[in-house]
Amino acid sequence: MSRAFEPCPPQLAFDWADRWPRASGAEPIPLVAAAGRVLAQDLTAHADIPAQPRSARDGYALLAADTLGAGDYNPLPLRIGPASLPARRGYAARVAQGDPLPLGADAVLPLEQGDMRADVLEVGVGLASSDGVIRAGEECPAGGLLLGTGRRLRPQDLARLALAGLTEVRVRQRPRVRIVLAGHFETDADGPLLAALVNRDGGQVAEVRIASDPPGLADALHAPGADLILVAGGTGQGPQDRAFDALQQCGTLQLDGVAIHPGGGVVLGDSGSRPVLLLPGAPLACLCAYDLIGARLLRRLAGRPGHLPYRRRALTLGLKVVSSIGRLELARLRISADRAEPIAVADGHTLATATQADAFLLVPEQSEGYPQGSTVQAYLYDHYD
Amino acid sequence: MSRAFEPCPPQLAFDWADRWPRASGAEPIPLVAAAGRVLAQDLTAHADIPAQPRSARDGYALLAADTLGAGDYNPLPLRIGPASLPARRGYAARVAQGDPLPLGADAVLPLEQGDMRADVLEVGVGLASSDGVIRAGEECPAGGLLLGTGRRLRPQDLARLALAGLTEVRVRQRPRVRIVLAGHFETDADGPLLAALVNRDGGQVAEVRIASDPPGLADALHAPGADLILVAGGTGQGPQDRAFDALQQCGTLQLDGVAIHPGGGVVLGDSGSRPVLLLPGAPLACLCAYDLIGARLLRRLAGRPGHLPYRRRALTLGLKVVSSIGRLELARLRISADRAEPIAVADGHTLATATQADAFLLVPEQSEGYPQGSTVQAYLYDHYD
Repeated sequence: MSRAFEPCPPQLAFDWADRWPRASGAEPIPLVAAAGRVLAQDLTAHADIPAQPRSARDGYALLAADTLGAGDYNPLPLRIGPASLPARRGYAARVAQGDPLPLGADAVLPLEQGDMRADVLEVGVGLASSDGVIRAGEECPAGGLLLGTGRRLRPQDLARLALAGLTEVRVRQRPRVRIVLAGHFETDADGPLLAALVNRDGGQVAEVRIASDPPGLADALHAPGADLILVAGGTGQGPQDRAFDALQQCGTLQLDGVAIHPGGGVVLGDSGSRPVLLLPGAPLACLCAYDLIGARLLRRLAGRPGHLPYRRRALTLGLKVVSSIGRLELARLRISADRAEPIAVADGHTLATATQADAFLLVPEQSEGYPQGSTVQAYLYDHYD
Repeated sequence: MSRAFEPCPPQLAFDWADRWPRASGAEPIPLVAAAGRVLAQDLTAHADIPAQPRSARDGYALLAADTLGAGDYNPLPLRIGPASLPARRGYAARVAQGDPLPLGADAVLPLEQGDMRADVLEVGVGLASSDGVIRAGEECPAGGLLLGTGRRLRPQDLARLALAGLTEVRVRQRPRVRIVLAGHFETDADGPLLAALVNRDGGQVAEVRIASDPPGLADALHAPGADLILVAGGTGQGPQDRAFDALQQCGTLQLDGVAIHPGGGVVLGDSGSRPVLLLPGAPLACLCAYDLIGARLLRRLAGRPGHLPYRRRALTLGLKVVSSIGRLELARLRISADRAEPIAVADGHTLATATQADAFLLVPEQSEGYPQGSTVQAYLYDHYD
């Protein structure tokens, strides 16, 4: 085996990640467990929601026509009747927010705007029909779309579906990820690291395997049950690094090395129509290569936008950031107030630089860095979705 | 019972939320399950990490002194020896990233910078001691702090703790939340809504109860096993709204009504030294009151920053937003490109306005709104952490 030392441009790796179709499986799950999952079907309402008009407030249900001409200097009196009977001219009925409107009533006077004197309600304001009312079908008419395929379900979406009477929904299966620990050192650290990253990006860890010999690696690349295979370690050029050979023999090698730093040793390919990432075993390089390429790919497989998962923030550099032309540099930053200072760029190879960092900055291949005082867009390690 | 119609200023409700101490329980959990949890102890390293120097790259371990004077026009020859023996002057040994350095070696030449001719390595660059090496203790020295109490664990933190040999950590218990459905309508929708919101904000749903009569409500407010009680529905002024009375009788009422919209009917109090929120039963009002007050409180109990969980984005208003003086308005917005248009302000009482919205805007009590063309900071419904 002879391998080139020419890493490919990062854009080629991003294009590779963007070519995979999203994972196609779907599964039914209880509505209460569906927040954050992606809907695999269009859902329509079988009946009007609500089925009948309801009061939108605590107050008095009445006929709007009875309030015509009412004002501060012309309060109109109404008698209080039962809410269980149809509305009649000259009467109002006490209702709570959410109550069905008495038949025939078409407006609700807010509780605090009615003046009760003995059994008579004095109305000092004119109402229009539907004031204070949720009309039948106003949340969603019968046959209307509740939520569409591809929707990532929010908490309020669950409430909307519950209003429609649903207790179960079909969502996209989370892509199944096999994590293979193939290195000789530090790979214990890559296991919890990658499992947490996979969960963050909408995947599910199908299994974590330890495999560093050729038969074990071949099986890890061949076995069914995964939509994505992440191999950590054993990808370098040492004599015990077997993952590269295994990928060449059991699958297809696409890109050997990407001009990113840290993490440039990442190798991309496929096996059995599934993407395979060989990630460096050193935890910092593993993290950075995963974040830049793996997260993009997995989020795509999961049907989510493939951008970096971190929240961005504009920061002023308190010290210059220097980078080498020709590679995309992930520079870790410490923030105090609105200023950021680099912790480590080229020489920082410890994982500690990524636990101490508050954020990171991406310096493009064609840039040598940024001078002190420049404003940059940084990605915040503690804020992701 | 007679209740005032004067809601309190929102700041009083925020101050009430901010007065509660964080929940004090801690629990041990496996390291692999700890991402996103909050550390309940300081963790220190028992030994240097790494215990011995390691190579930071694939390359050749050597004595830096042997490269003194090396350059493009003055390549120095080294012989290749075994990595298992101590380093000797004049020799280099092939190592992979992560390998322990041969005893006595103090630098690693990158693989691509060494020119192998037969058994002789030609070195064309001078190295300093520690170049390409992770020194013993460089990740963390013996006795050094790995991560401190209160740290919300990131994926890379799990790797750091794994490098230190930890497989279990003590984290803060997620605050236990009892959800009580006390309304007569729509409260089925509030159950999944609140469960999803509680999970989002770092709480755990201890139980979901249905209780709308006085004994049931009294028990829901009295029973142990919860750090926070959320009651949805039954909080209005209708004859079947028992939650307010139950809180007055079983606990302490603190604030009855808050000048927010939607959700102004929220009631705040406590029972048995635990906070109690009575949330309106209408799902939109329930969502908004929870987001503005409940999320702040629960995140505080969980030891997380109490700000709104949504990502902010600057947007230009394509239409004016109008609001009433005297209340904090949560105006739902639809975004296209960088422009936002209000879906509903005062008159929008359907939950649909919050499922159709991409974002919301908070209009302070003292403001009547914002003219078309103004730039506002909006909160994005699809991005939260």
